[in-house]
Amino acid sequence: MSKLRIGSGVDFHQLVEGRDFWLGGVLVPHHKGALGHSDADVLLHAICDAMLGALALGDIGLHFPDTDNTYKDIDSKILLQRTMQLVGEKGYQVVNIDSTLCLEAPKIKPYVPQMQETIARILSLTIEDVSIKATTTEKLGFVGREEGVVAYATVLLEKYTIN
Amino acid sequence: MSKLRIGSGVDFHQLVEGRDFWLGGVLVPHHKGALGHSDADVLLHAICDAMLGALALGDIGLHFPDTDNTYKDIDSKILLQRTMQLVGEKGYQVVNIDSTLCLEAPKIKPYVPQMQETIARILSLTIEDVSIKATTTEKLGFVGREEGVVAYATVLLEKYTIN
Amino acid sequence: MSKLRIGSGVDFHQLVEGRDFWLGGVLVPHHKGALGHSDADVLLHAICDAMLGALALGDIGLHFPDTDNTYKDIDSKILLQRTMQLVGEKGYQVVNIDSTLCLEAPKIKPYVPQMQETIARILSLTIEDVSIKATTTEKLGFVGREEGVVAYATVLLEKYTIN
Repeated sequence: MSKLRIGSGVDFHQLVEGRDFWLGGVLVPHHKGALGHSDADVLLHAICDAMLGALALGDIGLHFPDTDNTYKDIDSKILLQRTMQLVGEKGYQVVNIDSTLCLEAPKIKPYVPQMQETIARILSLTIEDVSIKATTTEKLGFVGREEGVVAYATVLLEKYTIN
Repeated sequence: MSKLRIGSGVDFHQLVEGRDFWLGGVLVPHHKGALGHSDADVLLHAICDAMLGALALGDIGLHFPDTDNTYKDIDSKILLQRTMQLVGEKGYQVVNIDSTLCLEAPKIKPYVPQMQETIARILSLTIEDVSIKATTTEKLGFVGREEGVVAYATVLLEKYTIN
Repeated sequence: MSKLRIGSGVDFHQLVEGRDFWLGGVLVPHHKGALGHSDADVLLHAICDAMLGALALGDIGLHFPDTDNTYKDIDSKILLQRTMQLVGEKGYQVVNIDSTLCLEAPKIKPYVPQMQETIARILSLTIEDVSIKATTTEKLGFVGREEGVVAYATVLLEKYTIN
């Protein structure tokens, strides 16, 4: 049987005034930020979910419940680190990640390299293994009305081989 | 060339009063259920579509048209079984499935193990190969207004090898 | 490390009167078409993004910016061709593509074989390696109101091996 596994995640957050806007582990200057129990980093959450899902380890809500005060305002980079530990304990490593941020504003292109570096460092990858794309929804729906943000992530995992 | 293939599916259903709510082959107690020609099991439909898509076999609407009375109120577990047969006839088996249910209510976590067992049994997998995650859309959009439910699924298939 | 890579894309366009409706490189007869700087082919854009994303080459907005008049009304088949060149230069080829079009109308099933042939020809694949599925959103949201169209694509890439 294949040593590879596929995972996918999707996450949603409301955008509101007066919150910091964390995306991919980076603080993005904007007049709104994502609402949530943690720092509400929609991209890191989607990536965590994709990694957990590839090994059927449950989802981010199971591991880091928003009813637990431990995770109040927590830096989602810590959640990604813990997710990586769970994946590593199962004997797997990430081959590559691809992701898409759906948001109307701001333009996140200037922040993408820093997001890639941040995620790659936590997951012991190179930035060539961490893809972050972005698109608007062309003014359509809650993303188009700047009421919310969505992130999709897919991941390919591979079982370690001992040489 | 690789023996692996990737597939992905997405399915949508309206939520209405007075319908049973089938998710992942399990009847979930709720005051609303999904509207559709079959039992409207959005999760099984997304998984069927991902499996069909990995081999370019068309989609669930092609194989089980909602204009055909054969499929009126049909148990979607039968559709999943038939999809597995189609995949098997092409010489492929499922490596793993990852999926996400987007719905505002109810909490489906208590039903996930039964969903995993149901799907795994039909596809001759272990429950570690069938991931089911869930998320709300944080009150956003038609899912947030409890008007509908969405499911995403990704699948990795592998060609049989004869030893 | 695995020679395989996973990619995923999602794209959105508004549907408006008085525009041609290009989908998968095919002109689909309809009273509306997708609005965009290029020919607004939502399916080809999602596939381009999945291919770029698998190798962390950025996104379609980076390579073919809508602020550049070069790409005004451009045939997205040209963008797909250029994307394939970028992927090839990195030493990769497509194993298979799976995609889903979300639109309320028209029924695109009659056009799917021609879309598959068009995409397969550009990417030097067979039509068995190019899956195009379609679904409505059951009247829900902006797709259900026929205000927009969404496409999802996933792709598996493999590194060339020299025999």
